[in-house]
Amino acid sequence: MQTEVIIPLWADLSAVAIGSLQGALFASGFRDRRLDLLGVAIIGFATGLGGGLLRDILLGAQPIAFSTNWYLPTAVLAALLGMLLAQLFRPLTRFITVLDALTIGLYGAIGTAKALSLGFPIIPSIFVGVVAAVGGSVLRDILMALPIALMHVGSLYAVAAAVGTVTLVAFITSGMPIEGAATACVIITTVIRLLAVRFGWSLPEQRTLRRPRPRTP
Amino acid sequence: MQTEVIIPLWADLSAVAIGSLQGALFASGFRDRRLDLLGVAIIGFATGLGGGLLRDILLGAQPIAFSTNWYLPTAVLAALLGMLLAQLFRPLTRFITVLDALTIGLYGAIGTAKALSLGFPIIPSIFVGVVAAVGGSVLRDILMALPIALMHVGSLYAVAAAVGTVTLVAFITSGMPIEGAATACVIITTVIRLLAVRFGWSLPEQRTLRRPRPRTP
Amino acid sequence: MQTEVIIPLWADLSAVAIGSLQGALFASGFRDRRLDLLGVAIIGFATGLGGGLLRDILLGAQPIAFSTNWYLPTAVLAALLGMLLAQLFRPLTRFITVLDALTIGLYGAIGTAKALSLGFPIIPSIFVGVVAAVGGSVLRDILMALPIALMHVGSLYAVAAAVGTVTLVAFITSGMPIEGAATACVIITTVIRLLAVRFGWSLPEQRTLRRPRPRTP
Repeated sequence: MQTEVIIPLWADLSAVAIGSLQGALFASGFRDRRLDLLGVAIIGFATGLGGGLLRDILLGAQPIAFSTNWYLPTAVLAALLGMLLAQLFRPLTRFITVLDALTIGLYGAIGTAKALSLGFPIIPSIFVGVVAAVGGSVLRDILMALPIALMHVGSLYAVAAAVGTVTLVAFITSGMPIEGAATACVIITTVIRLLAVRFGWSLPEQRTLRRPRPRTP
Repeated sequence: MQTEVIIPLWADLSAVAIGSLQGALFASGFRDRRLDLLGVAIIGFATGLGGGLLRDILLGAQPIAFSTNWYLPTAVLAALLGMLLAQLFRPLTRFITVLDALTIGLYGAIGTAKALSLGFPIIPSIFVGVVAAVGGSVLRDILMALPIALMHVGSLYAVAAAVGTVTLVAFITSGMPIEGAATACVIITTVIRLLAVRFGWSLPEQRTLRRPRPRTP
Repeated sequence: MQTEVIIPLWADLSAVAIGSLQGALFASGFRDRRLDLLGVAIIGFATGLGGGLLRDILLGAQPIAFSTNWYLPTAVLAALLGMLLAQLFRPLTRFITVLDALTIGLYGAIGTAKALSLGFPIIPSIFVGVVAAVGGSVLRDILMALPIALMHVGSLYAVAAAVGTVTLVAFITSGMPIEGAATACVIITTVIRLLAVRFGWSLPEQRTLRRPRPRTP
């Protein structure tokens, strides 16, 4: 089972940038919190790099973000951009949601493939992929002392990543080359996420906790 | 000093399952938080696996939960069970408290023994054991954005684990075989914890922060 | 580029003790939170050791705090001292602020130098230094479920560490021996931090979120 994935640096950096941008936009929406500039930058930063960091710590691998000088400035610049141009970006929410969905898919695929290539069993590999996909947003919420969105709103965020990475593993074990499996993972994750947004199961950044749902049978 | 402990997989998995079950029960009690199904599952999951994960990250060891396909499904299933059958389990609180106390003792013993066997000094080994014992519940509280119970209520949770692991180390250094020392650790931790619950120093899941206590001499 | 820094144990332990003391003082100020003794101890502990732990986890190195029996008792004793003698220490706020500023500088220098000596690139090394410098206080705020001070108040805390560690790297790459560069880092960080406190940009432990600042151009 060959699962070595060579992610082009620009793709990985783009994912980081989108995550940071989104994190900063999110944070800058909380005016009542009075974060200062650095606060918004840190939030963006954590959102963009958190998933990859958690992935590498869980895998016991050296954090990729620390392997070159590229990742950290990319995250910081994207976060600052998101903060400064928040007004400008706000009408583009829809576009950013699409980019973000792609990013979840990409992070899920990279995370799971990296775990597999390091010899981890299938289920932990899927778990690591999902953590990589959603870790940034969880870290963002912890840092902002917000309820963790992932656990409240519809949550097709994590579900989308899980379905995508399960598909990746299924395709790889049935002999598909990694590139094809990873592409399928990204597409499936993105589609599920976007359908979820579309069907209103969870608005991207919404955190209304008003929708009660019966939980016990 | 031979401290290699071979924990049978079923024992370790049982501890994980009890932790997850308890975490999910705890989370499902917070109806006003409107966690969704996934949220409750994540809480259960973190409670059951968090301690072991923190232990392995602190020790720089590969997380045991990722070494086979067993741990993650066990945690998820136990969490879902706890959530779905919350009504059923609620009258069993007492029984679960006993299981949970056993789990703290077991995790403390495993954590400290693992640290010692990896060559860590005595005090850090005790610390890692305590973190392994209580880490799941701390992670649970952080994820739920609750005040960390450990730091508020009586806290014989951590104290019990500390006394147990200190005993473990004392017995091992005085030549007792690891099996005996570990058993003593589990018994002592469990007894202290249960006495604490019994004497009302801290109800297991209670988080009333109402009892002021003079703190300065 | 020789960046091996041999930090004398007493210096490192002093930094840990100051951090723990300050953390415990901080925590004991929140009487309405009704932390118990252990809670205050944990807060102090996390504040004193958190930065170094995060640094070592990020670097994939064995946590230095676990390498000997000295660190953990030092942190616990300092935290207990801070808690018990809170009334006594409170008039010394100014003095503790100076010590704390020194500690930030020291942790920043150690963190960055350690990262460089392990072969990390420049920017990640600076990042790790800053995380080491501020990590303890961030951990403290997360454990207390407070808004993270770093992201709200003036934040010259992180800025001071960043300027200091950038200076360290600049001096090292231009050939200055590590001892000189580290000393410069500590001095610069301390001065910036103290000037910030002096100019009122951020009172050391203040967390009034009342100062609105326009954020978009």
